[in-house]
Amino acid sequence: MTPTAPAANRAYRRLSVEERRSQLLRAALTLFAHRAPEDVSLDDVAEAAGVSRPLVYRYFPGGKQQLYEAALRSSADAIVLCFAEPTTGPPTERLGRVLDRYLVFVDEHDAGFSALLRGGSVAETSRTTAIVDEVRRAAAEQILVHLGVPEAGARLRMMVRTWIAAVEAASLIWLDEEKRPPAPELREWLVDHLIGLLIATAASDEETAGVVRKLLALESASGPVAVLLRRVLPVVGDAGRLL
Amino acid sequence: MTPTAPAANRAYRRLSVEERRSQLLRAALTLFAHRAPEDVSLDDVAEAAGVSRPLVYRYFPGGKQQLYEAALRSSADAIVLCFAEPTTGPPTERLGRVLDRYLVFVDEHDAGFSALLRGGSVAETSRTTAIVDEVRRAAAEQILVHLGVPEAGARLRMMVRTWIAAVEAASLIWLDEEKRPPAPELREWLVDHLIGLLIATAASDEETAGVVRKLLALESASGPVAVLLRRVLPVVGDAGRLL
Repeated sequence: MTPTAPAANRAYRRLSVEERRSQLLRAALTLFAHRAPEDVSLDDVAEAAGVSRPLVYRYFPGGKQQLYEAALRSSADAIVLCFAEPTTGPPTERLGRVLDRYLVFVDEHDAGFSALLRGGSVAETSRTTAIVDEVRRAAAEQILVHLGVPEAGARLRMMVRTWIAAVEAASLIWLDEEKRPPAPELREWLVDHLIGLLIATAASDEETAGVVRKLLALESASGPVAVLLRRVLPVVGDAGRLL
Repeated sequence: MTPTAPAANRAYRRLSVEERRSQLLRAALTLFAHRAPEDVSLDDVAEAAGVSRPLVYRYFPGGKQQLYEAALRSSADAIVLCFAEPTTGPPTERLGRVLDRYLVFVDEHDAGFSALLRGGSVAETSRTTAIVDEVRRAAAEQILVHLGVPEAGARLRMMVRTWIAAVEAASLIWLDEEKRPPAPELREWLVDHLIGLLIATAASDEETAGVVRKLLALESASGPVAVLLRRVLPVVGDAGRLL
């Protein structure tokens, strides 16, 4: 039909098993990123990949559910990669960079991300929730590494896991509200959120108090903690009467 | 078999339709509270209620799924009731009382609560997630009432919803860790968490700054904010160099 058709056709024949599999997976990933699993059919995947439905079944005999889980596996690996960050410089700034990459991921997988985390999808199984939990665990471990306490105690671990839950909730609200506020503003607030939470937790946990002291020593006068303190002091100034 | 059997039998016959329905529902509630829905069968419900399986089907033709959803509906109503709190006294103390009641509920519905919020259960449908979301919305509205801003803007609403997500995550961890720390300690930390989050959010949101100012004016020298400040100041004292 078009001058490129014969070339495309040749490419079609020449793909190796592995190449074909990853081509189908890429097509599935794109579809599952921007739609709920309910709204993606095997025909959609076949069409997006420019192949027949039986060919999709040859590579994914489990059909749509198998494709969904393979796409989720691949997305989970991608998101864990974006947590990787050198352990140099102020931890609050490292975390800001990780959150920037995370929010790009959320932005690029909007409807699929919502459907996955909101629950109640027909594609949700104990296997898909296990993959999501694996990502949460990887996130918690990375944060504890940056806080300098990879072997943290119960309270600090609980704190980090609740912050991750808060980040997930904020991401879903952000998607619902047409990605407002802009991502950098959301990232700044999420970092402030963690700083507030660390300081509040330091009140009742000696280990967290130690983390906060070390963190403050690494901060610069233009870093996230300094900016937060300068903005917050005028608001809480009157609390002096409570002491 | 026992002296009470004839009486129980009379009671069996005399129950009205509504009484029978609520008897079955109570039996289902007890079972679903302490087991994952996968681990409750219709026979278990019939046995717990002392009736036959066909009788359960007569009242709940949708079988186990219908019973599960009815039990969830009833639990959701119960948990929303425990959010109710007079709007007098310091809001942090009101919130502490609500959290005490909430943690009693979590304690009394442990395995069912975990299975519901963890996701991936076969009993999870768009209907069950809608009920859970309804409870979250009710919680957010109540908190905003106590903060004195029922018509709050986007940032403050996001803050409250992320805190609710954090409370849910903390509850699941608490259940996983054999209900440690003791509930009053967890409650205290969750209140501190909200105070830290409010103050951190006040840095970038004028409405939240107003809420914090009003909140501080209502606090007493022995209230949650005063205790938190006294414990936290020695930890963050060195941050003065950042200003």
